[in-house]
Amino acid sequence: MTDTTATTATTASAGSGASGASAESDALRALYADWTAIISTTPDLTTRLFRSIFDEWHQPTREPEDVTYAEETVGGVPGIWTLPVGADRTQVLVYTHGGGFAVGSAASHRKLAGHVAKALGVTAFVLDYRRAPEHPHPAQVEDGVAVVDALVDRGVRPEDITTIGDSAGGNLAVAIPLALRERGRPLPGRVIAFSPWLDMENTGESLVTNAATDALVTVPLLESMIAGVLAEGRIHPRTPLANPLHADLAGLPRLYVNAGDAETLRDDAVRLAARAEAAGVDVTLSVVDDMQHVFPFLAGAAPEADDEIAAIAAWYRRA
Amino acid sequence: MTDTTATTATTASAGSGASGASAESDALRALYADWTAIISTTPDLTTRLFRSIFDEWHQPTREPEDVTYAEETVGGVPGIWTLPVGADRTQVLVYTHGGGFAVGSAASHRKLAGHVAKALGVTAFVLDYRRAPEHPHPAQVEDGVAVVDALVDRGVRPEDITTIGDSAGGNLAVAIPLALRERGRPLPGRVIAFSPWLDMENTGESLVTNAATDALVTVPLLESMIAGVLAEGRIHPRTPLANPLHADLAGLPRLYVNAGDAETLRDDAVRLAARAEAAGVDVTLSVVDDMQHVFPFLAGAAPEADDEIAAIAAWYRRA
Repeated sequence: MTDTTATTATTASAGSGASGASAESDALRALYADWTAIISTTPDLTTRLFRSIFDEWHQPTREPEDVTYAEETVGGVPGIWTLPVGADRTQVLVYTHGGGFAVGSAASHRKLAGHVAKALGVTAFVLDYRRAPEHPHPAQVEDGVAVVDALVDRGVRPEDITTIGDSAGGNLAVAIPLALRERGRPLPGRVIAFSPWLDMENTGESLVTNAATDALVTVPLLESMIAGVLAEGRIHPRTPLANPLHADLAGLPRLYVNAGDAETLRDDAVRLAARAEAAGVDVTLSVVDDMQHVFPFLAGAAPEADDEIAAIAAWYRRA
Repeated sequence: MTDTTATTATTASAGSGASGASAESDALRALYADWTAIISTTPDLTTRLFRSIFDEWHQPTREPEDVTYAEETVGGVPGIWTLPVGADRTQVLVYTHGGGFAVGSAASHRKLAGHVAKALGVTAFVLDYRRAPEHPHPAQVEDGVAVVDALVDRGVRPEDITTIGDSAGGNLAVAIPLALRERGRPLPGRVIAFSPWLDMENTGESLVTNAATDALVTVPLLESMIAGVLAEGRIHPRTPLANPLHADLAGLPRLYVNAGDAETLRDDAVRLAARAEAAGVDVTLSVVDDMQHVFPFLAGAAPEADDEIAAIAAWYRRA
């Protein structure tokens, strides 16, 4: 069932309206507006330069204190471990970064993963999975499965693994357990999806109703990312592991989903929560007023992100 | 006097010729070649996008293990502390990043500073000083002085402070102590300059003789950076604190200077060492065969960088 605590929290903050967002939270909107200006004034922006500017995604996140890092290749997939001092190293977040399957990196998400791991008292491995368009679906899912398999081979208990990601990586956080289920493997204990991007057909109402408030995600941007990950139309947009809104979600682990109420992709989160709940999954949905896409990037810098991560930590510790 | 150990090391590795460079060290050259391709194919590349691509400077550096980070504003200057586990927190490297005074950041140099601090067993504060062209000389020097002043006010002993930087930040690592001397303040205990860029008139012979081997630094690139930091010619290019090759170096702390033998700015390092030695400064010069600009960026990834940082650690510990 859908957890009501998060809904209550959303309602409580809704009373303050648009002006209720913290001044600090504007840093993420401002970065997105700057990227949007670059994209709109550079019509032939290359994938190379797209990747360069999206690697600035770490900028709104404050360095989490008391966290160390280590690079490793796990299951053939390179990535960065975030290792909070004193963390339980038997519990692992398998973090798949966002960026439309095409941009973003372990580097751009290191600090965000560090904040989440620290709040949960666990470690995180942030994957540098193969990116589109060079590597279309299902390369990203396969890389995630390979990492989970390698961790289990090392002796990590499946129930101590959480798949977690944001945007396209939130899609992967759901798709990876579904792929494991298809293969009869044990599933992770939990799934966390920040502003997941799931719908490969752009059917969400919030794509229209929030077009004026979302500073980054537009239908044309999504269309270009869809073309990349779905191999220029050669992969069907309702392929369940590419578009988990069309997957059978029964048996999915406990799921925490969030979104900002100002974002065009809000309805992907809302629809995922509804479909998972209908399939009997234990779901918590948090939609936070006035927030932009993947607002946990404001960790350490704005209260909305820190409150959200604290709520996730409480959710994580519940049986 | 110039230390001969480093010279011997250079001679020893010189025997292996161009093929003596490690395969791993090619990662830095390849990144520079990629940037150069972007610069040459994007004639109207904005300062904004220049900053985006130069923030990739961290990529050739492996995450140093057992190092934590914290953001703070020190003396009015924001920056990132690199805090190796177990480091002596009474000793501080004041790290000024490179990037022609215009690009680069604490973020781009966090890992490099972390490696150096860890090898030396100390902490480092990586400054996000004000950048040109918005803030021409002497804004960068003033920010460095403000940080040293603030650290001394906190009780750090001047002799436990080292000014250190690379490229334009190597210039600042020399200029900051000179500015402190002008004001009658106590000087740091040591100065470390990686591939310092000092000459604001482009008179070094290696600008010509290494033009074919340096993958990044060209005279036109330097001219654009000079225009920015010297306020489009309103500041004289022999201003001593902007061009320490024209400063009185007498009384400068112990100085470690390096450069790659393949780089166009090699002669800035060589001339700084010669002028400092002539002024009675205790100088160690290390010129490493086949290496590109600021080859310590290969820390954790190529032996040339790790060997260099180990040599600096030994130098640091000498009385």
